[in-house]
Amino acid sequence: MRFGIDVGGMTVKIGLVEGTTIKDKFAIQTRKNTFFADIADAIKKYMIENKLEFSSLEGIGFGLPGVVKDNKVDFLPNVGIRNIDLVYEMQKYFPKTKIASCNDANAAALGESKIQELHNTVFITLGTGVGGGIIQNGFVLEGCLGAAGEFGHICLDSIHQYPCNCGQKGCLETVCSATGIVRLANEYRKDYPESMLNKIHFAAKDVIDAAKVNDALGLKVFYEVCDYLGRAIANIAVVLNPDSFILGGGVSEAGEFLLSGVTASFQKYAHYAVKNTKIHLAILGNDAGILGAASLL
Amino acid sequence: MRFGIDVGGMTVKIGLVEGTTIKDKFAIQTRKNTFFADIADAIKKYMIENKLEFSSLEGIGFGLPGVVKDNKVDFLPNVGIRNIDLVYEMQKYFPKTKIASCNDANAAALGESKIQELHNTVFITLGTGVGGGIIQNGFVLEGCLGAAGEFGHICLDSIHQYPCNCGQKGCLETVCSATGIVRLANEYRKDYPESMLNKIHFAAKDVIDAAKVNDALGLKVFYEVCDYLGRAIANIAVVLNPDSFILGGGVSEAGEFLLSGVTASFQKYAHYAVKNTKIHLAILGNDAGILGAASLL
Repeated sequence: MRFGIDVGGMTVKIGLVEGTTIKDKFAIQTRKNTFFADIADAIKKYMIENKLEFSSLEGIGFGLPGVVKDNKVDFLPNVGIRNIDLVYEMQKYFPKTKIASCNDANAAALGESKIQELHNTVFITLGTGVGGGIIQNGFVLEGCLGAAGEFGHICLDSIHQYPCNCGQKGCLETVCSATGIVRLANEYRKDYPESMLNKIHFAAKDVIDAAKVNDALGLKVFYEVCDYLGRAIANIAVVLNPDSFILGGGVSEAGEFLLSGVTASFQKYAHYAVKNTKIHLAILGNDAGILGAASLL
Repeated sequence: MRFGIDVGGMTVKIGLVEGTTIKDKFAIQTRKNTFFADIADAIKKYMIENKLEFSSLEGIGFGLPGVVKDNKVDFLPNVGIRNIDLVYEMQKYFPKTKIASCNDANAAALGESKIQELHNTVFITLGTGVGGGIIQNGFVLEGCLGAAGEFGHICLDSIHQYPCNCGQKGCLETVCSATGIVRLANEYRKDYPESMLNKIHFAAKDVIDAAKVNDALGLKVFYEVCDYLGRAIANIAVVLNPDSFILGGGVSEAGEFLLSGVTASFQKYAHYAVKNTKIHLAILGNDAGILGAASLL
């Protein structure tokens, strides 16, 4: 029995995990001042209520929204806490319990890797931003400072050169995140007065839905997004040569339509030695982080 | 005592290695039909002539000019042999000797990694083409098919879109290899009638030497090459987050001048989380492959 914990700025999601199955899950509010005590209390209360033996607790794993290296975190901006030694903090409440952690996108990568049994894979999450994680031989590749898998900041767009939150221009996430998709549609909408998107206040999902029904503006943006993603994946493939890629995050809910567009673009850009690399869709949705966090143990 | 072997299309370079020191080296001609027998004979003859004990031979490591995975090679185009099981072939001659191999650029990466004591590093070789290798915790990262570290085929140039030998367009090596540097200079030379380069039949070294003495055409090409390289390194840095990069190959003989140009460009493009990643020059030159091959053991 393990607990996998997916920390967000608003809620902390806690899951009871056996093997690769999430048996149960619940959430608590994220509070800065009592962050660790709240999590410890919630787990203890849950275990007592459900008559779970503390002796059978194998460990507690965390996915944290920040740069994590060897269970140390400088800063969790969405939570507002700094200089965390996670093992030290949690073992105040669970002295003999194994504690592990990684970045939240890395945890989601590990969760998808476990459930899809892809043990050398690159997970790319397309949400408000673009992030991801690298799984090698079943383990998270953190990099020297915990910054590996920051795919959103691959500098790829030399056309629009939109400023990125990171301070750079032309980062992948400026054009391929949900935000980026809306940004591109706004850029082009004046050239497509007939587009259905001009009749609504649209989100990224609306842009892709419009593409699905052959709306010209929707398609223009969709093909451009697929072009960037396929090129980024082709570039990662010649660097790392993983056996597969997994696309996750809210944008990936566009499903097979997105997958076929990205795969076609990848085939266009991929070096011959890596052309057979498969691209898959994520299947766990929001549960990937919990399963991955528990899988760190 | 180990032997490190760097296989080329014309010659096979063989080095006697102790620790990280190449004690001696010699070369034989590369012959397709007697490839393994030639190497075995050369090593045995050398050992007998130098009164070296076969019992103290720890192993023989190879750097091979092709895609290598788990000591298996489909094809060595420059040598002309196919479907090689290196351990099987070499143990015909050295039945009890440990045999190891990797791609030649990976071997050079490992050699530089060992001598510079950079155990999590990315080596980029700028020669006729652009290649490289990734060293993680002191070991070569081969990738699932042996195609990791093919940095020359990162698709980055959307301006010139020169065709690459691999069949793609805009690959890093079309603009940053020695060949690419000459190609760029030829592209721009008509706009720089006063350039010293217009007076000679030039190679890549001449272009960079011209930049060093402020020749306008030389500088134009040099800054563009540095821009691509810095951007590629920044992109690799957010994927892998290594602790350092090493620039090798013939073009890197431009030394500190190249290093400062590439570093400035890297600083321009690098995500804040990886800005402190150091870029170094290779120091072993042509010996990197021998030392790296021996270090596989």
